[in-house]
Amino acid sequence: MNKIKAAIVGSTGYAGQELTRLLYNHNNVEIKYLTSKSYTGEKYADIYQNFNSISDIECIGDDLDEIAKDVDVIFLALPHGIASKKINETILENTKIIDLGADFRLKDKNIYESWYKTEHFSPSLLNEAVYGLCEIHREEIKKARLIANPGCYTTCSILSLYPLFKENLIDENSVIIDAKSGVTGAGRSVGLGTHYCEVNESIKAYKIASHRHTPEIEQELSHAIGKNITLQFTPHLTPMNRGILATCYAKLKEGINEKTIHDAYKETSKNETFIRLVKQGIYPETKWVKGTNFVDIGLFVDSRTNNIIVTGAIDNLIKGAAGQAVQNMNLLFGINESEGLLNAGMFPA
Amino acid sequence: MNKIKAAIVGSTGYAGQELTRLLYNHNNVEIKYLTSKSYTGEKYADIYQNFNSISDIECIGDDLDEIAKDVDVIFLALPHGIASKKINETILENTKIIDLGADFRLKDKNIYESWYKTEHFSPSLLNEAVYGLCEIHREEIKKARLIANPGCYTTCSILSLYPLFKENLIDENSVIIDAKSGVTGAGRSVGLGTHYCEVNESIKAYKIASHRHTPEIEQELSHAIGKNITLQFTPHLTPMNRGILATCYAKLKEGINEKTIHDAYKETSKNETFIRLVKQGIYPETKWVKGTNFVDIGLFVDSRTNNIIVTGAIDNLIKGAAGQAVQNMNLLFGINESEGLLNAGMFPA
Amino acid sequence: MNKIKAAIVGSTGYAGQELTRLLYNHNNVEIKYLTSKSYTGEKYADIYQNFNSISDIECIGDDLDEIAKDVDVIFLALPHGIASKKINETILENTKIIDLGADFRLKDKNIYESWYKTEHFSPSLLNEAVYGLCEIHREEIKKARLIANPGCYTTCSILSLYPLFKENLIDENSVIIDAKSGVTGAGRSVGLGTHYCEVNESIKAYKIASHRHTPEIEQELSHAIGKNITLQFTPHLTPMNRGILATCYAKLKEGINEKTIHDAYKETSKNETFIRLVKQGIYPETKWVKGTNFVDIGLFVDSRTNNIIVTGAIDNLIKGAAGQAVQNMNLLFGINESEGLLNAGMFPA
Amino acid sequence: MNKIKAAIVGSTGYAGQELTRLLYNHNNVEIKYLTSKSYTGEKYADIYQNFNSISDIECIGDDLDEIAKDVDVIFLALPHGIASKKINETILENTKIIDLGADFRLKDKNIYESWYKTEHFSPSLLNEAVYGLCEIHREEIKKARLIANPGCYTTCSILSLYPLFKENLIDENSVIIDAKSGVTGAGRSVGLGTHYCEVNESIKAYKIASHRHTPEIEQELSHAIGKNITLQFTPHLTPMNRGILATCYAKLKEGINEKTIHDAYKETSKNETFIRLVKQGIYPETKWVKGTNFVDIGLFVDSRTNNIIVTGAIDNLIKGAAGQAVQNMNLLFGINESEGLLNAGMFPA
Repeated sequence: MNKIKAAIVGSTGYAGQELTRLLYNHNNVEIKYLTSKSYTGEKYADIYQNFNSISDIECIGDDLDEIAKDVDVIFLALPHGIASKKINETILENTKIIDLGADFRLKDKNIYESWYKTEHFSPSLLNEAVYGLCEIHREEIKKARLIANPGCYTTCSILSLYPLFKENLIDENSVIIDAKSGVTGAGRSVGLGTHYCEVNESIKAYKIASHRHTPEIEQELSHAIGKNITLQFTPHLTPMNRGILATCYAKLKEGINEKTIHDAYKETSKNETFIRLVKQGIYPETKWVKGTNFVDIGLFVDSRTNNIIVTGAIDNLIKGAAGQAVQNMNLLFGINESEGLLNAGMFPA
Repeated sequence: MNKIKAAIVGSTGYAGQELTRLLYNHNNVEIKYLTSKSYTGEKYADIYQNFNSISDIECIGDDLDEIAKDVDVIFLALPHGIASKKINETILENTKIIDLGADFRLKDKNIYESWYKTEHFSPSLLNEAVYGLCEIHREEIKKARLIANPGCYTTCSILSLYPLFKENLIDENSVIIDAKSGVTGAGRSVGLGTHYCEVNESIKAYKIASHRHTPEIEQELSHAIGKNITLQFTPHLTPMNRGILATCYAKLKEGINEKTIHDAYKETSKNETFIRLVKQGIYPETKWVKGTNFVDIGLFVDSRTNNIIVTGAIDNLIKGAAGQAVQNMNLLFGINESEGLLNAGMFPA
Repeated sequence: MNKIKAAIVGSTGYAGQELTRLLYNHNNVEIKYLTSKSYTGEKYADIYQNFNSISDIECIGDDLDEIAKDVDVIFLALPHGIASKKINETILENTKIIDLGADFRLKDKNIYESWYKTEHFSPSLLNEAVYGLCEIHREEIKKARLIANPGCYTTCSILSLYPLFKENLIDENSVIIDAKSGVTGAGRSVGLGTHYCEVNESIKAYKIASHRHTPEIEQELSHAIGKNITLQFTPHLTPMNRGILATCYAKLKEGINEKTIHDAYKETSKNETFIRLVKQGIYPETKWVKGTNFVDIGLFVDSRTNNIIVTGAIDNLIKGAAGQAVQNMNLLFGINESEGLLNAGMFPA
Repeated sequence: MNKIKAAIVGSTGYAGQELTRLLYNHNNVEIKYLTSKSYTGEKYADIYQNFNSISDIECIGDDLDEIAKDVDVIFLALPHGIASKKINETILENTKIIDLGADFRLKDKNIYESWYKTEHFSPSLLNEAVYGLCEIHREEIKKARLIANPGCYTTCSILSLYPLFKENLIDENSVIIDAKSGVTGAGRSVGLGTHYCEVNESIKAYKIASHRHTPEIEQELSHAIGKNITLQFTPHLTPMNRGILATCYAKLKEGINEKTIHDAYKETSKNETFIRLVKQGIYPETKWVKGTNFVDIGLFVDSRTNNIIVTGAIDNLIKGAAGQAVQNMNLLFGINESEGLLNAGMFPA
């Protein structure tokens, strides 16, 4: 088979860089272009020295129309509001698009505009775009032209809660997701909020009741249960580079017991390479998924409170961004879904 | 005034050591004895070199009966199950006891024995012991002989939620406390679970639905609202030395709005030196309370979900242990409640 | 005694903030003014929330001429090149100046200009300024109007090596100082080099053979031995908030043995409150001096190589900046040199 | 080609585990046995959960004689003093041995016994064993039966200094190596010295003038220059999981200039896949080699002191242990030397 020719647009952010690394390790891919607004003309390995002796590519600017003619797939790793301006029908006729940003994730233009406080510039594509959570939308992904790769918190939250909604096991409006993320989630742009001494040795909640991944989680879980649900999502900034842990709470429906719960999760994940249900009594830890595309899920039922507590752990830059994008690409091009993604995580890392 | 003569029993754990430090800085205290089972006969400053040039004390063993004759107050910083064996009427006639451990916190012997899986050896003292959360039991503390200093998670959780229960503003059985602690909370005993490379750069939940601070929180909040309540408490191990952040969720009662909430917290804390309500829009961070006896509290109402979200931050070794013990001592001996405790935290620390 | 009225100019950098904290804890000081270019008009406690409930001061701009009329001492915590423009004779007639910056540390204008690549604007004051390393220039400090508070690396390096030069025990041109600093040493200004994810979990040397603390160390050690010396100084950025460890190497002079070395250090430090020689076999660690004004020094002689290895540890923001400034102030105003500075460090912090 | 059948003896330490991970990713290897004294009978993925869904192997005990009959290569990752007891002629006739421990690294039994304070049990094998630093002993390695894989500090130090000795560019007895290691270097055994709160946020030197990697470095550099040399080696414990940075100092020989130095390094490394000379003005950082088999080397000449300063960075568990072991295996079995080892490091990790 010919190699898939790929371009990464916005390759010098953390997600773009992680994707670049994964694609260099992928047997079926040839990276044709790395683009960067800030570093046009510079050698990629001078920006990210981990690529010394690995990559000789120089970053170019991002003329999507031209790039689209030359490659089989374009990955977009851009701030929100830009992709919806850049993508058009001609591009989609020339190449596949996997967008790691937020612009095509929400089906409802109004919800997008109300949470993102910005206009959406290609609402006509919202319906066509497929939400790229492979474990849920696998079949549509295979046939898509435009894939909206899910957010990091979103991926972890949805995969942790999906069987509860799908199988109707909980009070659907009782859900609370208390999520903790490493600092790479905030990207590479500098600011006091990510200054070493301000982040190190401290933890905080932020964007309570207002984080933009909330409607994305609600959209997918509403879809799973077949009615509109609302939930509480709270992100936290944790003093570590990588990883998301989502601690999810829900009130069990009358008559639902531990066995029903476990059965539902086993059934849902039985053919899923990247979902690992941890043994009973074991707590997922972000260290065990670091560097991998796995999500580790632990289930706990509290008979005193009748709550189910689910904890899910992912690597925010892999299953929460670049790894999932590769998984989507694998599906799109009909190769093994786990190609380039199946490895034991590096530990301690 | 003569100085208060104090002994610290179990002075070589992290809480005992922090207490030793605070008492060395306290104008009204003379440390008479530091005891240690593991380091009897060794110079304290050889165990904790931060005490070089500060302390010449040698650790002794812990013959409480003898020590009690010589000092005005004994602080106990021992694993659970030991204090309840050691304390007796004669000791209490000779000296005041402030117990940083768990043995006298729960009023109900059965609840203690069921959560701690051990016998309680002085149940007759459970009624006399005063739960030493100063902001709530100030008047009883002043007259006590035996004070049960609250747990770290407990202090943070109760202070964060107290006005909601006291003023009956929430569905009292809807509470979820998702708490994150630094690693000093696990103490100084070595084990794989606190090995540097196993903890660093990772986060996990642990003891879900089974952490022993749960009944303590329930006891005090039940007392506040006047009926028995049950809640969900989940602790997390966070890669940092110090600090607890409790993110607390509750369903608002019909008709309760943001103003009612804020008023209740303002009223409750208006004379409280150590409660700081942060400005609206600001998120408490553990770094701002590190090294202090403060609890920082932030209030957030989500009109979409009708939840109140309260985040509280403390230094687990100070307001969560040693600082609160000093605050209790200050009350006991009729000196200024904030003596030795009022300082800006060191930052960045 | 009346309290010393103090102003801190540049109070919102890390060193200025640490100084503010120390002065709030100082029994003999009243803080009159906190100045800040970036935060003029803002409440100090809104910038550094550790000061909530402690300080109500609002930052003002830095009109030194006016401030000088109102206070007994002005502390300057400014980037280099500014103080030498701002200080003048009138100011010095009105108040004492303790400059935490670099402008008045080097006696030789040419050396200053060659290392700092900028003009010096008040060379006439270079002679008057006293180099504020209290352990070495105590008597001159007491009589000074203008004190040049030493750099952080400098303080640690000089105190670690001083007796070797003073007593002529080493080949004076063989010295290598390999120093490791926490990230607060780089200040609070944001940049990719101090972005959390770029610093965390990594170590590097930087400014090899070109760091500006080099001539400062050379000046003072040359003075100690009575001839001009040259040495190698290499700083490293270490993934931690605070602390400097200087590992210093020198070739022993013929006939110098371990006892001579130890005697020299004991003699030099015998009346020094803030120098702690650690026991033989113990290695200084930055954690034991964190939060204190101490320098911990360890001595090691290698008979195989005939090298002496000295390791010195300080808290870069305290003995390396704000604490030393307070120590200088104490000397200047004739109060106990260790007032406000003598405490066991907080641990683990 | 048939896959190389491999056994890892001592697979549950950090080095053994990293080797297991690398071999799972290696196209030419089949892992036959993982042994563990502490975890015999347990599933490897239960000990290291990063191996869930990757490995089903159960740990066995370490009967080397039996294992040797079944595999092409045995990797030993054991504490020193054990391998020299276990290896014998029969084993070496049956299989290749790559020993990650210290027992066969030093050619001189007396030096071994004096630094390691233990008897050497197979001195007759010292001559046969090949020191497995591939860049230096490549040809002998290809023909060896028993390879002594170098230490972590050693690898970094030797590769950083080798051209200076080989080309006789420095005063050979002036060398000082100031090395900084992450905490994985101390292994997975628990102890107060690796307890999270004792290591985090602090740095220290340790084993000054007495670290066992010293004679190993001296042996190889003596060999390079053709006479016996002595040097100063100082290790430091740095608060991070992985990485070694060696900052090396030497006095330049008369007449040696910067160009000579750079030429020597370029010549030495021109065919070396894993040596990366960083651009001038760039400082090696451990983060750029983390997760890789590279050593990054930076060269700095100080004309003021006439010193050459070389900084070298490696991942201590890869180029300093498991990666180098794989590189040795590749040489031994005639496959591409970089097979399974050539990848961009994960960043930020």
